[in-house]
Amino acid sequence: MSSLFPIRALFRRPSTPLSIARRLHTTRVMSEKMKPAARVSGRRQDVWTIINEGAAASPKQPIVNMGQGFFGYNPPDFILDAAKEALNRVECNQYSPTKGRPRLRKAISEAYAPFWGRKLDPETEITITTGANEGMLSAFMAFIEPGDEVIIFEPFFDQYISNIEMPGGKIVYVPMHPPKEGAVKTLSAGEWTIDFDELERAITPRTKMMVLNTPHNPIGKVFSREELQKIADLCLKHQIIILSDEVYDRLYYVPFTRIATLSPEVEQITLTVGSAGKNFYATGWRVGWLMGPPHLIQYVSAAHTRICYSSVSPLQEACAIGFEQADSQNFWPSSITSLRHKLDLFNSVWHELGIPYSEPEGGYFVMVNLAGVRIPADYPFPAHVAERPRDFRLAWFLIQELGVAAIPPSEFCTDANSHLVEDYLRFAVCKPDEVLEDAKERLRGLKKFLKRD
Amino acid sequence: MSSLFPIRALFRRPSTPLSIARRLHTTRVMSEKMKPAARVSGRRQDVWTIINEGAAASPKQPIVNMGQGFFGYNPPDFILDAAKEALNRVECNQYSPTKGRPRLRKAISEAYAPFWGRKLDPETEITITTGANEGMLSAFMAFIEPGDEVIIFEPFFDQYISNIEMPGGKIVYVPMHPPKEGAVKTLSAGEWTIDFDELERAITPRTKMMVLNTPHNPIGKVFSREELQKIADLCLKHQIIILSDEVYDRLYYVPFTRIATLSPEVEQITLTVGSAGKNFYATGWRVGWLMGPPHLIQYVSAAHTRICYSSVSPLQEACAIGFEQADSQNFWPSSITSLRHKLDLFNSVWHELGIPYSEPEGGYFVMVNLAGVRIPADYPFPAHVAERPRDFRLAWFLIQELGVAAIPPSEFCTDANSHLVEDYLRFAVCKPDEVLEDAKERLRGLKKFLKRD
Repeated sequence: MSSLFPIRALFRRPSTPLSIARRLHTTRVMSEKMKPAARVSGRRQDVWTIINEGAAASPKQPIVNMGQGFFGYNPPDFILDAAKEALNRVECNQYSPTKGRPRLRKAISEAYAPFWGRKLDPETEITITTGANEGMLSAFMAFIEPGDEVIIFEPFFDQYISNIEMPGGKIVYVPMHPPKEGAVKTLSAGEWTIDFDELERAITPRTKMMVLNTPHNPIGKVFSREELQKIADLCLKHQIIILSDEVYDRLYYVPFTRIATLSPEVEQITLTVGSAGKNFYATGWRVGWLMGPPHLIQYVSAAHTRICYSSVSPLQEACAIGFEQADSQNFWPSSITSLRHKLDLFNSVWHELGIPYSEPEGGYFVMVNLAGVRIPADYPFPAHVAERPRDFRLAWFLIQELGVAAIPPSEFCTDANSHLVEDYLRFAVCKPDEVLEDAKERLRGLKKFLKRD
Repeated sequence: MSSLFPIRALFRRPSTPLSIARRLHTTRVMSEKMKPAARVSGRRQDVWTIINEGAAASPKQPIVNMGQGFFGYNPPDFILDAAKEALNRVECNQYSPTKGRPRLRKAISEAYAPFWGRKLDPETEITITTGANEGMLSAFMAFIEPGDEVIIFEPFFDQYISNIEMPGGKIVYVPMHPPKEGAVKTLSAGEWTIDFDELERAITPRTKMMVLNTPHNPIGKVFSREELQKIADLCLKHQIIILSDEVYDRLYYVPFTRIATLSPEVEQITLTVGSAGKNFYATGWRVGWLMGPPHLIQYVSAAHTRICYSSVSPLQEACAIGFEQADSQNFWPSSITSLRHKLDLFNSVWHELGIPYSEPEGGYFVMVNLAGVRIPADYPFPAHVAERPRDFRLAWFLIQELGVAAIPPSEFCTDANSHLVEDYLRFAVCKPDEVLEDAKERLRGLKKFLKRD
């Protein structure tokens, strides 16, 4: 760096002791007036940082990372080829329309027609966003005024929280209840249930939106048609906008109902969220979409324009081609087969160990109940892990002892409801088979920590 | 569509007259409770829609579009190749770190070192955003509490407005004054000036941020070192965060000073915004960055995480390689030469016509003063154009009569200051030479509408 100093000298006044003193003084005074807004300051350390830190500190290198839900393999070639082709085209490297590229909106309309029973209007009923995440933020920005309430179910996808709080929304939490025998028996993820009386009691005159997630992350539950009908009836009765996060909508292992398709009335109050990252194994592409009636979509679109202006052009084009060719490539069924296989492959280790889990009905996460794992009483946890619920200690313990990283789901709960999930860890199976085999071999090491009855 | 009805029937209850009546009723009732938030509703039609509409209605098809600042040609091959290579790599298709890919942050640190006089710390002083636009929103979200004031100069980049209003900021406008002889003489864009007394009077105890844009869009002005020093002194005195939008920072035709480099004190209060879209001719890639001291950058990063989570991975990687190879490809000087050439090529038509313009000091926009153009008194403007300032009528007139689209800059001003720019139109020259030649040929048609003295 010393070679750069002469250049620096051209741009800066020399640092005299006085100017250094003044700089230190300035920095101190500044910090008062330059403080950040409440919305970005003073949160506790997030789960991703803790897990990464734990991974770096583990003696079991390299760690098998089954924490975050990114894919350990590439999108299929026909989609990668489409992206490379798009990069050659001038208009695919420049701004797309703020609502998204017409070809992608048309492709989505056609791809979803079999589920909706009609083609959605690409001009008015579909809008492209910078990933599902910014799509959901756009929906909250479109409809939430300060003080409006949004109901979400626990455990929740953590980004919902800041996305609702940014426009000043108040979050009202309703727990999903784990199966009573979850600690002793492997049961369907569908056994996690909503108490509908509890849900209705959470509704107030300020309830503006309700967020649904099916297939559910982290639970793996696919909401049944009957459950969705009850939710829809409540939302119709109380005139609540349904924001249905369906980013795992191509990965279901039981019948999957999209709430917007229950009836024309429900469709009128529903925004459905989709994700190319999840559909096409490309979480880094940041292409998502919202579908719904024009009187809702137009404002989501307006909010998106104010947030990101437009979304990434060449990858929108690639996703359009992805949807156009998916059927001829037999992509959707092979995607289900592939992830179903990975779930079975991985979960067999829990059967070996006699450890129960929630059998996923959709998606690529599995919630494993580790109530039976005995952590030595004097195990040396860092203070910021020791003070969190048991699942954080379990996650840290697995990383240090076995070199396998998973996510503690109490991060996705309020403190009051952490107890519901504190014996569970979430594993992402969207990894190459050899990684899953490696993880299984390591997890067999849990045997010596299991409680004997 | 009729072939889809049987499938639809599987998903939907039959429509009885009762359910249809209920639906109509429901939709009506819904619209009350489901109204959008104020931040996305009730704005007048934006300039882009009006211009596109005008273009569609013009008899002079196809229109030469010199309106929006997207490039009419591709990024250089070495960057496109880098993007295609990145698409082959698993980690380049998955989530990037929320702060951005380490390789890109390092490449930016090295690329900017000659200007900063040192390498910025890629970990703490640089954060990647989803385009410069979302980067600026992240900065406002990071620091603005409701009621905080932000000073911006008119004319302004239109996205600033909604980006400041989203976190509840109050915008305080300070005009840039056009050269007095702008209607009769071609002068440097540097002749647009700030009244520094006016600027200081705009500062209040609630002033939290000031937005600077240099090279300036739409004016083409590069702020002089002396002007920047005066702005910086005011911001230091009143402890105001400077948000310096420098997205055209590689296109300057006079000496260009980056305000953050004026002194260590100024650097401590400055966030500098950059754009790969503008640097590399790829406005559709949505890769931008903010540079600044750790005590500011960390909160921009936190806000970005809450807005978009992370930014597009393969194109971040391509931009990293773009920065790494730019010098060996002689890209930056050739970029200046190319755009300087396009400005000269295009602007020669104004000399032919005797129409004055502001000679750009940077960027790729030129502001042309069309005070001398006589629009027939009975020209049939649509009502929503007729009611806007004269530049909107000029823009509409040029589209209809000559088939050339340009942007009326009063869109970028408050009503009170529209008069400052209402004789100007903004032309973007980042188009192929043959498009510029076509535009010139069409613009020669203005001759018959020029006032004769």
